[in-house]
Amino acid sequence: MSSYSMQQSSISENNRSRILQYLYHNGICSRAQIAKAIGLTPAAITKITAKLLSQDVIEETGDMEGDKNRRSIGLNLNCAKYHVVGVKFARSLVQIAVFDLKCNKISLTDLPTVSEEHIPDTVEQIRRTVRQLIADDPHIVAVGMAVPGPYLRDAGHTALVSSMQGWRQVNFIHEFSAAFDVPVFVEQDARAGALAQFLFNPELSEGSLAYYLLGEGIGLGLIDDGRIFYGAHGTATEIGHVSVDVNGRPCDCGNVGCLERYCSAVAIHEELKTEGDIVPGCESMTHAQACAALFAKADAGDEAARQLVNKAARYIGFGCVTIINAFNPSHIVLGDIVSQAGQPLLDEVKAIVSEHTIPEVSSETTISLSALPTDATVTGAAAVAITNFLEHPSMFFDVA
Amino acid sequence: MSSYSMQQSSISENNRSRILQYLYHNGICSRAQIAKAIGLTPAAITKITAKLLSQDVIEETGDMEGDKNRRSIGLNLNCAKYHVVGVKFARSLVQIAVFDLKCNKISLTDLPTVSEEHIPDTVEQIRRTVRQLIADDPHIVAVGMAVPGPYLRDAGHTALVSSMQGWRQVNFIHEFSAAFDVPVFVEQDARAGALAQFLFNPELSEGSLAYYLLGEGIGLGLIDDGRIFYGAHGTATEIGHVSVDVNGRPCDCGNVGCLERYCSAVAIHEELKTEGDIVPGCESMTHAQACAALFAKADAGDEAARQLVNKAARYIGFGCVTIINAFNPSHIVLGDIVSQAGQPLLDEVKAIVSEHTIPEVSSETTISLSALPTDATVTGAAAVAITNFLEHPSMFFDVA
Repeated sequence: MSSYSMQQSSISENNRSRILQYLYHNGICSRAQIAKAIGLTPAAITKITAKLLSQDVIEETGDMEGDKNRRSIGLNLNCAKYHVVGVKFARSLVQIAVFDLKCNKISLTDLPTVSEEHIPDTVEQIRRTVRQLIADDPHIVAVGMAVPGPYLRDAGHTALVSSMQGWRQVNFIHEFSAAFDVPVFVEQDARAGALAQFLFNPELSEGSLAYYLLGEGIGLGLIDDGRIFYGAHGTATEIGHVSVDVNGRPCDCGNVGCLERYCSAVAIHEELKTEGDIVPGCESMTHAQACAALFAKADAGDEAARQLVNKAARYIGFGCVTIINAFNPSHIVLGDIVSQAGQPLLDEVKAIVSEHTIPEVSSETTISLSALPTDATVTGAAAVAITNFLEHPSMFFDVA
Repeated sequence: MSSYSMQQSSISENNRSRILQYLYHNGICSRAQIAKAIGLTPAAITKITAKLLSQDVIEETGDMEGDKNRRSIGLNLNCAKYHVVGVKFARSLVQIAVFDLKCNKISLTDLPTVSEEHIPDTVEQIRRTVRQLIADDPHIVAVGMAVPGPYLRDAGHTALVSSMQGWRQVNFIHEFSAAFDVPVFVEQDARAGALAQFLFNPELSEGSLAYYLLGEGIGLGLIDDGRIFYGAHGTATEIGHVSVDVNGRPCDCGNVGCLERYCSAVAIHEELKTEGDIVPGCESMTHAQACAALFAKADAGDEAARQLVNKAARYIGFGCVTIINAFNPSHIVLGDIVSQAGQPLLDEVKAIVSEHTIPEVSSETTISLSALPTDATVTGAAAVAITNFLEHPSMFFDVA
């Protein structure tokens, strides 16, 4: 293909993608509305939508009120027709779920808690489970995977998974890219979470969006000016390994005072173990269970529990200050395990931000708790697949 | 203008700009080489270059060896024909210089050291000086200004200038945008520095580039995937106000432990004043003079001077670790006053980075000292004007 015809082809794919994205975000629209919104000629819209209709990707919904009282026909993206699989990898958690394009959950499977020595078995079990899902549901068109960062995109593996180094040995591209009959897309977990917020929360689709993942690790996904921010090799926005204290606690990454060492679910669980009387029996709990027990106790008014939540919240707040100074986002969304501490955590985070930033700068950034369900990262994994479906339609149906 | 015709017009401007940028970076080229490199048809290239030739923006240089031994005519961007003015604002320094498009310096003026109460006089003096330069030199087509961050692009002023708050009162858009007969472009100083490295150092034009400004303040400018990273309101990459110690020194911005408080020229000058015997008489020096005296003494082997340089270098190194984890650039370039400490500083910075990062991640990032002259930020101000000339040609000559 000459570079000129390649340019033309990518312009067609881009126009097709913009029509699908517009229908996805705006629901039923007429051809004239789409033409006006995305700046294409009515003739171009008619040509592209004819092809999408013939492939059943979109459907006509009958007459709707048009401009100047002319009747026009509504178009709708056939969101229920396409399903995707989302796979979430955390340190000790693997979740597999099926969603339709609008993020309605069709099924969810939790794999047994993963231990270091059983990672290869877990990989095989994931392949088996996903294959079975695809065999049972012909609507499934793609698989999205969310993996812990720093994820080296070209190499296909994570560079470090604090406290669960075994995952480093897994090459996600080798293990999964050809494992199924549908395309597979792998993304760092916090970026997947950012895509989910962007797709499923209309209030966050304006401006730039930072998804602050407070799970077993601490991560950040940033959508700036409509694009995910990757850096040169995909390891940017590793906020969990940004130091908040050059004299602080050592981290597996080689740095000291990494944010992750103070406010991840793993760090909170460690503190609970040393202060055994706040959550009795926490030694035998998962990180998520221990945090949930702590937050419940804090909500019930236990002072020691409250103080521990507050201490983590202060560090999360300092992380927000760094996010604002480094990335200047319009929105910061707190999600995953530790964000379940809820309003008291959000209040303390906002207090720290307000004390430690220039008001003119931080007043431009909203900070909120994720409004998506608890399993936001598995939703994020699905969002990775859905985003690719909307951006690269020619991978999924005949466009010629 | 309809959005369709606006799209068409921006495609033409984009193609024109790509031709100019290609000629700028590659020197004399044939039409066929340009067509191949930027993926346009020979007919499109012929049409656009004809217009550029008729306006004398480019010139034909005579026969050159073409593909398959066919002779073809060389084209060259007329870089000597266009001059730009660069104005650098720091806390107490204002420099004004004239350059041609290839960054050859034609003149340089240092304004007297600025004090808080004389800022309005300084602004007036800048206007007078630049107007005179433009009156004397009809080749001048644009003015670029480099101002301390965090610079609020839409509002037109900086949100904070530690230890020189008077600059906050200056609205650069109001004061300068209509002051001259040529267009004026204002940019945060470290971003201007990044543009200069990108334009004038061919080794840095591949991959993403972080310019780490170590001057009276500490700043960062990032060019990622070919675009400056601004964030939502232009205050991203404020590395100087990223905390390296949540229990550290308070800063004017409201935060504690800001990097700027440990390794800027101002911070180093403060430490020199408390340890008066390292650089005697430093109280009456400018920040730049005091640093230069310290570095000279360290080079001469003075142990106390060496230790002070090393202490600053360690903090600069921790800043690099944060830059790598937050932005994952291909290149970090250290520039401005403190980078004049030279090789010993660079060695210590690299040692800190190597100790405190994941090797697989940091091995992808080069760290070097700026190869541009000492007055890199005034060069950066010129680079802002030159970049706009290359990206928005229709602002500078008739393209219709």
